[in-house]
Amino acid sequence: MSEPALRVSDLETPALLLDLDKMERNLKRVADYAHEHELRLRPHTKTHKTPALGRKQLDLGAVGLTVAKVSEAEVMLASGTPDLLVAYPVIGRKKLERLMEVAAKTNVTVSLDSALAARQLSDAARESQRHIGVLAEVDAGLGRVGVAPGSDLIELVRGITRLPWLRFDGIAFYPGHIKSLDEGGLNAVDALSQLLAAAIRELKQAGFEVRIVSGGSTPALFHSHEIAGLNEIRPGTYIFNDRNTMLMNACSLDDCAGSILTTVVSTAKKGQVIIDGGSKTFSSDRPVTAAEVSFGHIVDSPEAVFTKMNEEHGYVDIRRCQRDFTVGDRVRIIPNHICVAMNLHEFVYGIRGDLVEQVWKVEGRGKLQ
Amino acid sequence: MSEPALRVSDLETPALLLDLDKMERNLKRVADYAHEHELRLRPHTKTHKTPALGRKQLDLGAVGLTVAKVSEAEVMLASGTPDLLVAYPVIGRKKLERLMEVAAKTNVTVSLDSALAARQLSDAARESQRHIGVLAEVDAGLGRVGVAPGSDLIELVRGITRLPWLRFDGIAFYPGHIKSLDEGGLNAVDALSQLLAAAIRELKQAGFEVRIVSGGSTPALFHSHEIAGLNEIRPGTYIFNDRNTMLMNACSLDDCAGSILTTVVSTAKKGQVIIDGGSKTFSSDRPVTAAEVSFGHIVDSPEAVFTKMNEEHGYVDIRRCQRDFTVGDRVRIIPNHICVAMNLHEFVYGIRGDLVEQVWKVEGRGKLQ
Repeated sequence: MSEPALRVSDLETPALLLDLDKMERNLKRVADYAHEHELRLRPHTKTHKTPALGRKQLDLGAVGLTVAKVSEAEVMLASGTPDLLVAYPVIGRKKLERLMEVAAKTNVTVSLDSALAARQLSDAARESQRHIGVLAEVDAGLGRVGVAPGSDLIELVRGITRLPWLRFDGIAFYPGHIKSLDEGGLNAVDALSQLLAAAIRELKQAGFEVRIVSGGSTPALFHSHEIAGLNEIRPGTYIFNDRNTMLMNACSLDDCAGSILTTVVSTAKKGQVIIDGGSKTFSSDRPVTAAEVSFGHIVDSPEAVFTKMNEEHGYVDIRRCQRDFTVGDRVRIIPNHICVAMNLHEFVYGIRGDLVEQVWKVEGRGKLQ
Repeated sequence: MSEPALRVSDLETPALLLDLDKMERNLKRVADYAHEHELRLRPHTKTHKTPALGRKQLDLGAVGLTVAKVSEAEVMLASGTPDLLVAYPVIGRKKLERLMEVAAKTNVTVSLDSALAARQLSDAARESQRHIGVLAEVDAGLGRVGVAPGSDLIELVRGITRLPWLRFDGIAFYPGHIKSLDEGGLNAVDALSQLLAAAIRELKQAGFEVRIVSGGSTPALFHSHEIAGLNEIRPGTYIFNDRNTMLMNACSLDDCAGSILTTVVSTAKKGQVIIDGGSKTFSSDRPVTAAEVSFGHIVDSPEAVFTKMNEEHGYVDIRRCQRDFTVGDRVRIIPNHICVAMNLHEFVYGIRGDLVEQVWKVEGRGKLQ
């Protein structure tokens, strides 16, 4: 006899649920878009941190996977990926030695923005006799990592090309400053396109071949083909989407595959219920665009507001709700930011309707180094 | 030959460091205070989530340990504690069955605020033939869990005392609304004292014996002896303290035992450095009192401001610093909230000076259910 089917109602809470129909639709939509516009797709796996989900992305045509940390790269090898981009400067000898172990098993590329990071990488590559790809990171407007286009970029690229065991592949950027698809956001897409066109032209004039131009976060994802020269995208959140993606008008409620199932544990205060998840379950990330402080979209009672949290308590204002809540009621919530929420859960549950079809361990959870 | 000593400079970053001298002093100070004032000490282990640290608290005289979740209770059994308080309503059959397994190994008490939670607990206790202690949760002003003193409390306690296999021990509260020790905070301590005195008197008049009056978070900790009737404290943060505790004037900088060691990974933007830790390393918890948005106290350069974070990037404004920063520099930061930071780290490092004396696995990390 086979085991009885596990149902969502059997799960203890809090539990992070992934709606598999929605997730598969999200994955296919972006794979199709990338295929249609001949864009290389290297999804950022920091969102799911789960090799089995990286494998699904590869099976749909991704050319490789992206990670932020060497420890995430180590975990993501289990996906069988032929290619890993570490979209983060890797600094420090031990970390670089570990990266070279990864490079013994798959093709590794690193994006970086300093001569020092390039030199350390070249030294480690030489010692282990591994060729490593490099993308020069350009600041596209966020003001985080990346050099300014122009002389800084040319100097960085010249440095990279002179270092042994490094292969200059092109440039990378992260358009995290584009937070909505309103008129301002679309103007920012235009400005980005011009900035990149100039950067690529200058690099070519200086004698450098720019084979890869890698960018693309989830919000502006479907405008990637409008950006001159862009030929690779690295979206992460698109596999699940979240409340932030919705607030940025970059997906609909129906595209949100990730939610957190909670239980009402107290109704002692009138007009409020306390649920069994707070900052250790959702993270304390606030909405990226909205001015008000709230921590998720309450699926079955959108008029309820998740106003406050402590570590294990969520405060939900139910004063505008038509229904009553009782201790033991289950409440499903789409978190503001699914990437940080996934990182808090040891296991996540792939569901189809009321059936739990998959239990995944989040293998990359807490891999910080 | 013995292994060469591990030094802080050998650690890869980001790494959560615990200064053992400071931690031991913090532990002893509160143990001495509790002893002096004849207060039972049941430290909340949600801060460290590490059985070895719970053991240290017991060795210094704690009568038991406190947890927020059944899964934390399961983990904390390894400390050898003779007593566990689950300071959280346990709702749902499976969770209660797991709690009864814990109760087979140590004395278990639960704090709760609803008749439904009490009934479910009694049913599970009866089925497994385990006696479970119960504290009735009182709302002391935070408006989170807990019933109002007066008729609600008397009704809750009456319900508990009528249920089989439950032992009514007394009342619990959490004074999380006291966020500073200024005049307002001390007035709130007075008000709390009066509220509790009335609640205890009413319960006694109704014929109930209140053996335990359990409260005490870290900020108002050393005022516990001034609160009428209080005979048990459950502070958590005091073992390490953090920037929030400092901002609440409840500890000094020198009392902060926990810090996060990071590395500068980019200096591309003038006046700013990027460090290799963000919301997945520190959590995105903002300061609990300060109006400005900042994410930690930068130990060696207090004039630098940790202004912004993404998942793996911290933005540090260095415009007011006298010194320069280079890629590869190490920066040590006291996080706003150590409890949520600990929960993000797989391992933490107990240090004395530059020596790494202990490596602890955070066994309770991500135990949500």
